[in-house]
Amino acid sequence: MTRRTDQLKLGAFLANSGHHVAAWRHPLAQADASQDFEHFKAIARSAERGKFDALFIADVVALWGHHLDALSRTARAEHFEPLTLMSALAAVTERIGLIATATTSYNEPYHIARKFASLDHLSKGRAAWNLVTSVVADEAWNFGREQHIDHTDRYQRAEEFHDVVKGLWDSWDDDAFVRDKASGRYFDPDKLHTLNHKGAHFSVRGPLNVARPPQGHPVLVQAGASEAGKALAARVAEVIFAAHHELPAAQAFYQDIKQRAAALGRDPEHIKILPGVTPFIADTREQAQQLFEQFQALIDPVLGLRLLADTLGEDIDLSGHDLDGPLPDTPPGQRGSRRDQVLQLARRDNLSIRQLYLRLAGGNPVIGTPSDIADSFEQWFQARACDGFNVFFPYFPGAIDTFVDQVIPVLQQRGLFRLDYAGSTLREHLGLPRPANRFSTRAPA
Amino acid sequence: MTRRTDQLKLGAFLANSGHHVAAWRHPLAQADASQDFEHFKAIARSAERGKFDALFIADVVALWGHHLDALSRTARAEHFEPLTLMSALAAVTERIGLIATATTSYNEPYHIARKFASLDHLSKGRAAWNLVTSVVADEAWNFGREQHIDHTDRYQRAEEFHDVVKGLWDSWDDDAFVRDKASGRYFDPDKLHTLNHKGAHFSVRGPLNVARPPQGHPVLVQAGASEAGKALAARVAEVIFAAHHELPAAQAFYQDIKQRAAALGRDPEHIKILPGVTPFIADTREQAQQLFEQFQALIDPVLGLRLLADTLGEDIDLSGHDLDGPLPDTPPGQRGSRRDQVLQLARRDNLSIRQLYLRLAGGNPVIGTPSDIADSFEQWFQARACDGFNVFFPYFPGAIDTFVDQVIPVLQQRGLFRLDYAGSTLREHLGLPRPANRFSTRAPA
Repeated sequence: MTRRTDQLKLGAFLANSGHHVAAWRHPLAQADASQDFEHFKAIARSAERGKFDALFIADVVALWGHHLDALSRTARAEHFEPLTLMSALAAVTERIGLIATATTSYNEPYHIARKFASLDHLSKGRAAWNLVTSVVADEAWNFGREQHIDHTDRYQRAEEFHDVVKGLWDSWDDDAFVRDKASGRYFDPDKLHTLNHKGAHFSVRGPLNVARPPQGHPVLVQAGASEAGKALAARVAEVIFAAHHELPAAQAFYQDIKQRAAALGRDPEHIKILPGVTPFIADTREQAQQLFEQFQALIDPVLGLRLLADTLGEDIDLSGHDLDGPLPDTPPGQRGSRRDQVLQLARRDNLSIRQLYLRLAGGNPVIGTPSDIADSFEQWFQARACDGFNVFFPYFPGAIDTFVDQVIPVLQQRGLFRLDYAGSTLREHLGLPRPANRFSTRAPA
Repeated sequence: MTRRTDQLKLGAFLANSGHHVAAWRHPLAQADASQDFEHFKAIARSAERGKFDALFIADVVALWGHHLDALSRTARAEHFEPLTLMSALAAVTERIGLIATATTSYNEPYHIARKFASLDHLSKGRAAWNLVTSVVADEAWNFGREQHIDHTDRYQRAEEFHDVVKGLWDSWDDDAFVRDKASGRYFDPDKLHTLNHKGAHFSVRGPLNVARPPQGHPVLVQAGASEAGKALAARVAEVIFAAHHELPAAQAFYQDIKQRAAALGRDPEHIKILPGVTPFIADTREQAQQLFEQFQALIDPVLGLRLLADTLGEDIDLSGHDLDGPLPDTPPGQRGSRRDQVLQLARRDNLSIRQLYLRLAGGNPVIGTPSDIADSFEQWFQARACDGFNVFFPYFPGAIDTFVDQVIPVLQQRGLFRLDYAGSTLREHLGLPRPANRFSTRAPA
């Protein structure tokens, strides 16, 4: 396989006290980060100093988790709303991209098109929309529904939602606003386009009351791993957040998505696939492992057992069992399901209950020296398992500075990462083309 | 009537190139302000330098105006979305309040509660929600409806929407987040409250996934002038933007609202009534009048006639008439309607067509020297016609600096305006109490 000549794309994942579920308890982490904008501003500026492509923030439109005893041991019960936070961060950064999550299940396309267009203007071309569908019933209950929308409907709605948003972003030609003080003409009425969308889920007339975004369209990010999710991603995604922990699975996913995109007539280079990874970094491997173990040791068993129940299913009651003993006999899940995978993992590695929940809680850690981290990144990148990474920093604020000061220079020395931003928009950072306007590029009738 | 011992409250109204409909054409105005965050940042910082209570931004969730020839002569066709803009401005200001408009007609209360709570945290207690109902069909068309919601339904929906939002803001006690690293408890589950709202328009379970806002509740702003609007304002508004141009009408409105509030058991001092006013300021009255005339002269007749049609009704065709002649005979509108008022004004002051549309376009100007402006403010304030003003600056960026440099010091010298902010939250600026949490103040069952 030839050595790649392109460079890694890196996203920095925002989380209150860090990505590790028990991060807030660690002495290195700021426990009250959730309501502290200065904390997020410092993270954003560190990421920009490190020349990251973008900041990323996930979202759920509900307090997610009814098991209060477990939830109350995490820093995940409350956080800034993504669009307000990213808008504020736009004002205190210059170059880094801003990826905000918004669900298509409980929003209206006019609002979403407008807010992301506004963010793209505020940031001079740095906005991206992480398009998701809602999967937890808790969200449905906040929006007048008894249960969440089923998978098929959810994706059909998402497809149509996406198409309406893109159509609204094309409401104005790029050069519609002439602002001629002498003649008194502020915009050219011929360069305004009314969408008039009528579909199964939405009727949206348009036009948008925001000028065409600087990027044409804010960058489209997606993370679906289901068949419907992959089909949508191949058609519309420009960045994909992937969740694979093992190289062969990541390579298979990468190849699958790129081939699907090519089959749809897209340039596969115009979809960047970024798996999530959590680096634990120290001067020696032993120290790095110790750092990782420190965080793992802070996971309360109440929380650990809840992670297991969330993954395996509510029918499994482990409360009477020895945490350091094996998992009791458990009926397997549907073949290929998450339950099935986790049960196989426990059997294969002969894990105790505690070891299993720690494995789940640990996510996808990369543990080692700065050059170990760089080796791992390089291996995955060259093996075409990814185009870069979405970096989940285990704790904030310190972990991102360690990464920027110690790992980024190694990646740069190896030619794997930019020395500085070459462009000013997120599309330019990612090497993505600026989309043409669907209306103004039509041939005259 | 005794001289008031309180001080004026001042809001600074944001608009692209200024509030005057032809502002963007004037040499003093920045024509391409609509997409320039730096422009709004400069305005915000000027307002903060002037110790204004708050910035204010209006909103319509549509491109409003089908008469493209007229609309294309204004700078109103596109602008930043209010919540994204105010979030960005929160990051570059320290003390000034941030009032963003959001409609109850085409939003969901969970999103609105969450975004304003997030903005209140981002700004450390400076957020306010201008609660409106949508009145133009153009908005309905963007949200799957054929026509806008009728007046009664709209206000019933608004009432319930408001109550749900307030309930969601009380999801957490102020001291719910204990973040005890030693015990591993991040929040106290007993201090979390689930709303479980089921009403005619909304079913919203809650709780909100944002901590209780620093202000308890962001400040509630409203502007309804109809009977339903005034009833809602008397019950819930903490700031009212009023639209009266003449002192006796403003006094009557002021007295009416304060009496209604008192009748509902509220302290009338906890509703601040701020009429809109557009100051044209110069060193002499003649120069100020000339400045005003310069702006008025930039109104294209196409735009002027459209303003008349929007006000009088589409059945009146003035296209064949001499602009400098009188209005043709026109059937009067419903008694007390805007059409009726404007026709009476034209008759009373013997106005030509052009003079009439210029009168409408001029809004509520106050024209004169800095001390004339201060006299006018003082007169209205002492006559209990208002508690302050929402200042519509005719052009940006210059007009706000003129006001801050020349009018604010006169108001300060007269003891009518603060020398500096005394508090840090918008509630403190306005002298409004911080609301108790409906859940945590309940007596134990």
